[in-house]
Amino acid sequence: MTGAQHTEHGTAGPTLAVVARAASVSVATASKVVNGRADVAPDTRRRVTEALDALGYVRRPRRTPRHAPPLVDLMVRSLDTSGSGAVLRGVEEEAHRAGLEVAVSASLTRARGGRPERSWLDRLALRGTTGVLFDHADLTPTHHARLAQLRVPYAMIDPVGEPPPGVPAVGAGDAQGARAAVRHLLGLGHTRVAVIGGHRGRRSSAARVAGYRAALAAAGLRVRPEYVRYADAEAGLARRRTRELFALDRPPTAVLACSDPMALGVCRALAELGLRVPEDVSVVGFDDLPEARWVTPALTTVRQPLSEMAATALRQLLRVRDGGPPPAAPAELPTRLVERCSTAPPGGVFS
Amino acid sequence: MTGAQHTEHGTAGPTLAVVARAASVSVATASKVVNGRADVAPDTRRRVTEALDALGYVRRPRRTPRHAPPLVDLMVRSLDTSGSGAVLRGVEEEAHRAGLEVAVSASLTRARGGRPERSWLDRLALRGTTGVLFDHADLTPTHHARLAQLRVPYAMIDPVGEPPPGVPAVGAGDAQGARAAVRHLLGLGHTRVAVIGGHRGRRSSAARVAGYRAALAAAGLRVRPEYVRYADAEAGLARRRTRELFALDRPPTAVLACSDPMALGVCRALAELGLRVPEDVSVVGFDDLPEARWVTPALTTVRQPLSEMAATALRQLLRVRDGGPPPAAPAELPTRLVERCSTAPPGGVFS
Repeated sequence: MTGAQHTEHGTAGPTLAVVARAASVSVATASKVVNGRADVAPDTRRRVTEALDALGYVRRPRRTPRHAPPLVDLMVRSLDTSGSGAVLRGVEEEAHRAGLEVAVSASLTRARGGRPERSWLDRLALRGTTGVLFDHADLTPTHHARLAQLRVPYAMIDPVGEPPPGVPAVGAGDAQGARAAVRHLLGLGHTRVAVIGGHRGRRSSAARVAGYRAALAAAGLRVRPEYVRYADAEAGLARRRTRELFALDRPPTAVLACSDPMALGVCRALAELGLRVPEDVSVVGFDDLPEARWVTPALTTVRQPLSEMAATALRQLLRVRDGGPPPAAPAELPTRLVERCSTAPPGGVFS
Repeated sequence: MTGAQHTEHGTAGPTLAVVARAASVSVATASKVVNGRADVAPDTRRRVTEALDALGYVRRPRRTPRHAPPLVDLMVRSLDTSGSGAVLRGVEEEAHRAGLEVAVSASLTRARGGRPERSWLDRLALRGTTGVLFDHADLTPTHHARLAQLRVPYAMIDPVGEPPPGVPAVGAGDAQGARAAVRHLLGLGHTRVAVIGGHRGRRSSAARVAGYRAALAAAGLRVRPEYVRYADAEAGLARRRTRELFALDRPPTAVLACSDPMALGVCRALAELGLRVPEDVSVVGFDDLPEARWVTPALTTVRQPLSEMAATALRQLLRVRDGGPPPAAPAELPTRLVERCSTAPPGGVFS
């Protein structure tokens, strides 16, 4: 066995034996790491990976997948909502059309509030990726700089903050959807409408609350500060905020919850207070997750086109990768109010 | 440009120019296909892919990802439920621990009732995969034979039919969970308990209905055939079956729905009939999807450990791939009854 593989111009890297020697492991162990076998201690795996990197090991063509379809990477913040399924479906279908496969990562961001570890980005660049789609990620300027430096194409789906100019990003018509929801409630005759936003600092949450304010202002109604609350997109906190709203001297007769799970929390609190939806209080959600249709009463909600947003982000990523101009501004796909059974004219105990 | 790449022993395949000629396309177009670019007509892409396959094209090492982490493939039936997110999370976390990445496919089965196309299996084998996890798939004997022939390791999560001996498969304690649910209802004093199963022919659905029957038999109660219905795991059909149950001369006082979405359909039908849950009728679901906790009333349901099932299937796949003995029988992870607010002693309008 020689120290280098016999490849083009003899320039290719060392054999596995050289890597194994550098990492002080057996060739069998180094081979296990290269082939991704599970029976290697984490510390050993790390040592071998470092040696592979440092020595620039190139897998033998025989073992290299032949014309492996390129991968696009999807990094999601959480896999626990039916919304993440809609995003993944949009990416998967669009990738399939483009002849790409989809690799999904979640673990690496889970502990860090939607921020990928730098080592993950570096590894991606090393192994090669068609590009990365970040779903609901909170990238810092350092992340953006590192991605640019690594020349990894990327796009953002529903970004948490404002993406830098030139980075493809696709969101929903958040303000527009909230305006439509409030106009619907005003049209039914409600004048005391409260809003429960998600995370106070996030782009989409801020836009939804801004849409709520704009709709009230357009109708000549004052925004009561005590009617604007935030619940970190959690059903449990939305339930608590609802109890606070209905402890006010003048409680609202309608609540816009800025996500469907929060709307379920609102409905729970109302049931516990002995208030009926929609006879006593109207409730509107935001998302139109699959379950919104099947809860009782069926939820009136603002439909966010999550699959279409994800597919659009992938198309933008590929366009920029192929040399197209970066989009001038984040894209906003229209939302749409779906009227079901949780809204009605004001009445019941508050009339 | 010569007709072959300069690689080990001169045995490697043809250049892209040769492939392009065989496919009657330009080298630029062939290159686009190899690099997964989107701007290629589907028919052209197919022609080039076939030529790549037929000629045994090997990508140049320069373009080959260096020691790309091996992929494990997850083929899911649908991405539209929060249950699929739990499965993906289990696979992703376990894969991360094993140093693998996860590629997710769905499109190819969507149109074919959980059955992958043969071409998809062949392509997987060609590009190389650590193995395939099939979630809720309906593999035929032909699929099993082809997978064995291709020597692709695989495992099944919640298989639709009985997996052949030696194929790792992980399900939930379906019968055990249904028994626990019915025992809970009997313990509350119900004697008229109906069941709404999912798909009549499926393994897990049959096991749940068998558990229902076993629990009634153990309590010395007769199984009334009119109390056993199926709703294809759809909320809308479960709503219809519930209307049928409550049109009987002696309607049940409790319903076990064999999935959470079906339980929501049951609750909807009951509300439409003016019946209260749980005062008039008790309802138990199956799955414990995230929304089960936040619907009103919160759903008493049987928790299926979907993430753990998925992680276990991947561990079994890797064990068999590494030469371990195939499991003697499908694994069954225990389910557990989660008591919430949709069950109570019989009373209300039927007492």
